[in-house]
Amino acid sequence: MAASPITFDPANVWARIESLARHGKHGDTGVSRPVYSPAWRAAQDEVAAWCESVGLDVRWDAVGNIWGVLKGSEADKKSIVTGSHIDSQRPGGRFDGVLGVISGVFALAALKERYGTPKQTLEVVSLCEEESSRFPTTEFWGSRAITGRIKPDDLKNVISYEGESIGEVMQAAGFDPSRVTEAIRTDLDAFIELHIEQGPLLETAGLPVGVVSAITGIRHYIVTVDGVSNHAGAFPMDLRRDPMAGAAEMISNVINRAANQGRPAVTTVGRISAEPNFPAIVPDRVTFMIDARHPDPAARLKLYAEHEAAIHEIAERRGLNVEITDLKGHDPYICDPGLVSTFEEAARTVGAPFQTMTSGAVHDTQRMGAIARGVMLFVRSKDGRSHTPAEYTSPEDAALGIGVLTEGLRTLAYV
Amino acid sequence: MAASPITFDPANVWARIESLARHGKHGDTGVSRPVYSPAWRAAQDEVAAWCESVGLDVRWDAVGNIWGVLKGSEADKKSIVTGSHIDSQRPGGRFDGVLGVISGVFALAALKERYGTPKQTLEVVSLCEEESSRFPTTEFWGSRAITGRIKPDDLKNVISYEGESIGEVMQAAGFDPSRVTEAIRTDLDAFIELHIEQGPLLETAGLPVGVVSAITGIRHYIVTVDGVSNHAGAFPMDLRRDPMAGAAEMISNVINRAANQGRPAVTTVGRISAEPNFPAIVPDRVTFMIDARHPDPAARLKLYAEHEAAIHEIAERRGLNVEITDLKGHDPYICDPGLVSTFEEAARTVGAPFQTMTSGAVHDTQRMGAIARGVMLFVRSKDGRSHTPAEYTSPEDAALGIGVLTEGLRTLAYV
Repeated sequence: MAASPITFDPANVWARIESLARHGKHGDTGVSRPVYSPAWRAAQDEVAAWCESVGLDVRWDAVGNIWGVLKGSEADKKSIVTGSHIDSQRPGGRFDGVLGVISGVFALAALKERYGTPKQTLEVVSLCEEESSRFPTTEFWGSRAITGRIKPDDLKNVISYEGESIGEVMQAAGFDPSRVTEAIRTDLDAFIELHIEQGPLLETAGLPVGVVSAITGIRHYIVTVDGVSNHAGAFPMDLRRDPMAGAAEMISNVINRAANQGRPAVTTVGRISAEPNFPAIVPDRVTFMIDARHPDPAARLKLYAEHEAAIHEIAERRGLNVEITDLKGHDPYICDPGLVSTFEEAARTVGAPFQTMTSGAVHDTQRMGAIARGVMLFVRSKDGRSHTPAEYTSPEDAALGIGVLTEGLRTLAYV
Repeated sequence: MAASPITFDPANVWARIESLARHGKHGDTGVSRPVYSPAWRAAQDEVAAWCESVGLDVRWDAVGNIWGVLKGSEADKKSIVTGSHIDSQRPGGRFDGVLGVISGVFALAALKERYGTPKQTLEVVSLCEEESSRFPTTEFWGSRAITGRIKPDDLKNVISYEGESIGEVMQAAGFDPSRVTEAIRTDLDAFIELHIEQGPLLETAGLPVGVVSAITGIRHYIVTVDGVSNHAGAFPMDLRRDPMAGAAEMISNVINRAANQGRPAVTTVGRISAEPNFPAIVPDRVTFMIDARHPDPAARLKLYAEHEAAIHEIAERRGLNVEITDLKGHDPYICDPGLVSTFEEAARTVGAPFQTMTSGAVHDTQRMGAIARGVMLFVRSKDGRSHTPAEYTSPEDAALGIGVLTEGLRTLAYV
């Protein structure tokens, strides 16, 4: 008969969450810990020390990712890696990213304690950067370094909100920018990331855990709508070319289209500006940004085509000029079906109520997926909140998620 | 047989427009001349000197309005006043306001030269402020002073974009704020303001001149739409309370409603902001401003009621909280029917093709209307542009408008 699965004490998990939340503490429940800041360094130092204390071999790589290694007995096999990121929004909450790092250390420590040396090497990684909260264009600095996606020019071209290059900031934090390629790994088999859901789907379904089968594809557009500025009183409606009227119709159209299409399509307009932005002047320009996502590759492209067609139709009908600029995009990432099955089975073994679901947020896993099989585990978020100090996941849910992660890693590395 | 009406040489009118445009010149054709600035002072000084040179009695009043007086023979009669304002947007054009001042001086000089002393006193006024371009809440500082509508607190409560009180700024410009009530006039019979149209109606009708029968009523609202901020990817459309979706629908609704109602209803949204204004976050608040106008008192209130009902319906349906704040409003101003007839007849006498029309822009005339009969004359604006250096009225149209003004003043003051 198999041994009962390893479980974790929610109080211990909570103590570690609170301990890491001291670094960059913001108000009662917030954290502000941008990459390479002193708070970030203090958090990474705590992770490194904790890894050492549980008997993992610890090393920092060239960009500041921390690796805790539990060497396997079969030297020819590639590593199984779990982890997430340690940086935060400014401010963000205590769980986003860091819970995956905590989970990995708990899991490896418990597996080592109960089962000793694995067949296949297990590693936990505390990635240096995911949030783009200090440098808007880092695009997953930690996992880009590991997967060899950092271009030499990025060191001077990735600029912080404060105007520094990431190369300068790395140097000041004690990392040598000329050595970033040393972070590249080519010996990884699998990457498993536990993360808070950041949405309300598990909560509304009454489930603590999700197994993620795909990560959404995303595109950010800037839409610039140009019309003719006129006096708000003296210029009659029928002669106007009003970009605000056009932009409002476009925004309604794209948001309503995603809403009518239903889950998992999402379209958001979070950012808007008008010029000259005076109360009594018809603007001559309105600019807004669209964030549109779908985890199905074909459905995603269809959604974008519909958005673009609607925007052009509205502009033409209203005599407006429109320019759509693609800012960035990621294709959807389809998780490894074998790993999905492994972790579904692990959830059943542990007795964790779960569903298999897609992720509407982007994650390091889709970067790591370029060099290894990937999968994610979600744990329930209160009210679906994230990127805010109000972000919350209960200790019980977190502990249950760590149990699922641990059981899955066991079947991968020890059996 | 009556003498032929007085006419004006477009070249002389143009020379005066160019001369005044030197003060606060902005680029080739713009003017930036906020009230009480050195450029404003230079322009008022030029007007005062010009009035003196044509034989008018000149005085500055307590707030910096300049009056040029042609005393009438019948001392018991109240004054007939023409004029407009000398301040500008930042930058505005060369015509808005200043053309009415120029017209008044040309008219009085020509009447004095041909007909000598009028029966009823004629005055030209160069009002100090109309544009709210330095202090957002002046609300017609010059005509408010004349009509006794400045409250003592306004001197410290009217604050410039740069943070100064209007009392301080007056003092620095050489005016004594404690004496503002000395600007009050109770001896005015009529106020006639010639102004550029600021809209395209005369141009599209192919007419150089308009006689204004009513000035629009206006209301400015701030609409604050509150929802719940969420992750743009992880939060499904059906569970969102997205204030951007609501605001876009509201903006479309109010703009389309005025457009569908047709002239002269106008509704404009010129100003908008989102919080936190990030591309990948559903905003928690969108704020926008509505400027809605109609010159018919009953139709105006109906338009506002429809706007407010639509906004509340959309907010309720989408689970959003909405707050509508009335910022300011003016009732429509109905011009004096006798004066409207006088100036229609003057246009016919002069042979100026004209139409009788309403004004969608607000003007000093509606303030002056509190103490005197009022009417306006419009002259054609190229492309309906105003509040921009691109503002343009041809010298020929301007000269023709001055002819109509002069003929009307003649019938009022000399017959």
